[in-house]
Amino acid sequence: MLLSEIGGEFGFIERLRATYAGAAGDGLALPLGDDAAILDLAAGLQIVVSTDLLIEGVHFRRDWSDPYSIGWKAAAVNLSDMAAMGADPTFTFVSLALTTEDTVEGLERLYDGLSDCLNRYGARLAGGDTNSAPSGLSINITQIGTVPSGTALTRSGAKVGDILLVTGTLGDSAAGLALLLAHGPAKAEKLSHGLLTAHRRPQPRIVAARAARETGFVHACMDISDGLAGELPKLCAASGVGARIQTATLPLSEALLAAEAVLDKTALDYALAGGEDFELLIAVAPSNVEAVRAAVSATGTPLTQIGEVLRSGLHFAAPDGSGDLPVAARGWDHFAS
Amino acid sequence: MLLSEIGGEFGFIERLRATYAGAAGDGLALPLGDDAAILDLAAGLQIVVSTDLLIEGVHFRRDWSDPYSIGWKAAAVNLSDMAAMGADPTFTFVSLALTTEDTVEGLERLYDGLSDCLNRYGARLAGGDTNSAPSGLSINITQIGTVPSGTALTRSGAKVGDILLVTGTLGDSAAGLALLLAHGPAKAEKLSHGLLTAHRRPQPRIVAARAARETGFVHACMDISDGLAGELPKLCAASGVGARIQTATLPLSEALLAAEAVLDKTALDYALAGGEDFELLIAVAPSNVEAVRAAVSATGTPLTQIGEVLRSGLHFAAPDGSGDLPVAARGWDHFAS
Repeated sequence: MLLSEIGGEFGFIERLRATYAGAAGDGLALPLGDDAAILDLAAGLQIVVSTDLLIEGVHFRRDWSDPYSIGWKAAAVNLSDMAAMGADPTFTFVSLALTTEDTVEGLERLYDGLSDCLNRYGARLAGGDTNSAPSGLSINITQIGTVPSGTALTRSGAKVGDILLVTGTLGDSAAGLALLLAHGPAKAEKLSHGLLTAHRRPQPRIVAARAARETGFVHACMDISDGLAGELPKLCAASGVGARIQTATLPLSEALLAAEAVLDKTALDYALAGGEDFELLIAVAPSNVEAVRAAVSATGTPLTQIGEVLRSGLHFAAPDGSGDLPVAARGWDHFAS
Repeated sequence: MLLSEIGGEFGFIERLRATYAGAAGDGLALPLGDDAAILDLAAGLQIVVSTDLLIEGVHFRRDWSDPYSIGWKAAAVNLSDMAAMGADPTFTFVSLALTTEDTVEGLERLYDGLSDCLNRYGARLAGGDTNSAPSGLSINITQIGTVPSGTALTRSGAKVGDILLVTGTLGDSAAGLALLLAHGPAKAEKLSHGLLTAHRRPQPRIVAARAARETGFVHACMDISDGLAGELPKLCAASGVGARIQTATLPLSEALLAAEAVLDKTALDYALAGGEDFELLIAVAPSNVEAVRAAVSATGTPLTQIGEVLRSGLHFAAPDGSGDLPVAARGWDHFAS
């Protein structure tokens, strides 16, 4: 049977979960499927672990991004999983498959980017594995973090009536990628330096997530790595709820609005269906919204109210009040943790 | 500058260590370069982490091994790093890059092998990442384990006068690989089922390592993943000592001796320079050898005395007493942890 017959990677991942590793228990604090795993290994502290494999030609292209940015983003993707759990990142393990065409200078720039991103957010390179590969660079990062026991932010706690909020702005990274695809790096850079930077060097929301966690008011949290329309259904499924998004309230950057004329889709399209935003989607009871917003805003990250949690259904209300937009869940499928 | 100009992967790894992550401290209990990292994250318990990236065509070939065995070995390689530290394996994270030609049945057999090996040794699949890759299967495994604080077995504690011991037998896996290379899988299987099994489904020495650790007498320990001649210099360098191996005492299996007639090197060659044995090399004070041997033997794993720790120098005494063999360190270079 080919993977295509069971729905590709996604179908395969579902089979894996069902067969090998579904339930929590025995030291595993969550069932598979959240942004990271939580391990009960010690008293008072939980160990949070995420792992991501980035493959040349699939997740990055060397002609579209410099080695420093490739390293930065590889670290940021994993740190974003820590942020999604409200975890404090500690140690990082990097497996690298390199090719004979790689230069020492290029690899060192890649590690500079990786190391700078880790250090900015309190993590540290602690080991790894380096091999030659017949073709293409791949980078696997495993990120370890900690959280005081019982305080991790998960996807599964959203309650009917909760307010949904997001950090930062949405759609910038996907719009930057669209410019690269349509125009190549030189012209794309001229069209919007801001969007390309959002695509190449995302900022994981570690500090904002810690502030949100410390309020004790967050019911559910995840990072929007696969676009809001792709991720919201996962939070709703994990929590057993529905949601309505007021698309008129989605936070859009000046850079995205300014570039709308040269993009082939609207800013709202990118905000809804674009990937790799690495912003946080948070559910909070209405009475605690202001406390959480104040705590997060104090770290320098804006937190915007975008919708509410319903009993069931998924609705993206059109900006002009004309009913619901026909938004389909999109994005890449992960065996995520 | 090309990697070849600085000594390939090995030179690059040395530069990485020097630049980014050399020293212990701040929660990292060991400097880089042991079999795994030890993290001080909780009181009373240390978290042990290893990661390995296996690449099709470099570390395994599908025409030489069945999917179940590829999965088994991927797990065993990482569990062996846990054994080398005397750690109890807990949770396992698997990143998989698969291709469109992979079948569901093949991938499930791979996961069956992986899962069976993990379960046999007390570990459990806890998460991962699954992606499509343009070419070739790669598997990155990150293994988490624990050890009571301060009891981990490291490479760096061997003392002058210590006795060196190894578990099991040496050279079987490399001899099995040699048969595959020379004859292909069908004929190799006929020539020696035992050696092919040693190559395809190694047994990590988790149980023996725990027994050795619990004696409290082990000064140094590592796993022999790159051959005795390749690994002994690493233990000596980490401990600041030398060693003499009595090659006449190296434990050789019946299967290896029986196959010697169809192999192009001697059994001793494979035992010294072969890779992927995944046996343990242990240094113990002379007065404690019998206690450690008794504890390890009680788990069903033989432990054989093969040499002693000297102040300096590396000597492999010839079986016939004619002086030292001209053994050069060989094997693959890792940014190991």
